[in-house]
Amino acid sequence: MSTSFDAPQMSSSEGEPKDVVNALIAQSIPPMHGLGIRVEELSPEHAVSAVPLEGNGNHLGTMYAATIFGAAEVVGGALAIANFDLAHYYPTVKSVRIEYRRPATTDIRVAADLDQVTCARLRRDVAAAGKAEFEVDMVIRDLSDTIVAVAHGVYQVRAR
Amino acid sequence: MSTSFDAPQMSSSEGEPKDVVNALIAQSIPPMHGLGIRVEELSPEHAVSAVPLEGNGNHLGTMYAATIFGAAEVVGGALAIANFDLAHYYPTVKSVRIEYRRPATTDIRVAADLDQVTCARLRRDVAAAGKAEFEVDMVIRDLSDTIVAVAHGVYQVRAR
Repeated sequence: MSTSFDAPQMSSSEGEPKDVVNALIAQSIPPMHGLGIRVEELSPEHAVSAVPLEGNGNHLGTMYAATIFGAAEVVGGALAIANFDLAHYYPTVKSVRIEYRRPATTDIRVAADLDQVTCARLRRDVAAAGKAEFEVDMVIRDLSDTIVAVAHGVYQVRAR
Repeated sequence: MSTSFDAPQMSSSEGEPKDVVNALIAQSIPPMHGLGIRVEELSPEHAVSAVPLEGNGNHLGTMYAATIFGAAEVVGGALAIANFDLAHYYPTVKSVRIEYRRPATTDIRVAADLDQVTCARLRRDVAAAGKAEFEVDMVIRDLSDTIVAVAHGVYQVRAR
């Protein structure tokens, strides 16, 4: 069995999956880090990001649209990283649709899930073709658990 | 005729339309300003934004997805501001779909147009209902004029 079929792995020296992603953000994606976007929970099937309202206000005193977008967009990439070894694979985003339902007047959290069947299919596709595509729904909530936005992303995982 | 039917106007003391929007960004939307997003051209029917690659790189050395999104998203709001007096109306974004076609490896520019019929309809709707909705396509190009992404936004203009 190829290592591509192995269970998702992270180098233990790099800490928990979310720490790996937050370190990547801090080191390699300065604008995302600067917006305050962080991954708070991460496993191959579940990811949560968070971003503070402070520093992210807009002309209406609510959260800037692109910050909300960024907090949503990161969870798809994080899920890819939780499923594939960053040393050999990298994620890219192909498209995102975001719908703003109500103003975000507090910090926000974004949650997304991938089911086991999709995770297994991704590993098969990457092993067979060197790349794989997946879609994921993101739900953006404020601190009172009200949904302020929803998003749908299409991502690709590619072998380096 | 109500002032809502008047031709689009900007207070001359505030300078050109693009200067009004860039001042709003600098003063009221710090995260957008921090990403380096600027409006370069603005009239009621045409808007262009720009953002530098420098400071906006990602883990692949290309432009961060949310920065590209932000550069696209601003043009819809800017077109709204060019059509309505900010003293009495404000724009909000309802939804955006963005499709990343190829990596952005240079600074980018985003262009969008509104036709005269739509601008006139917006003024009628705002006068009648206190709000109006419009859709706009944004085209994102790199410095060699290659399309790196396309987006479609739905915006609303509301009376204060």
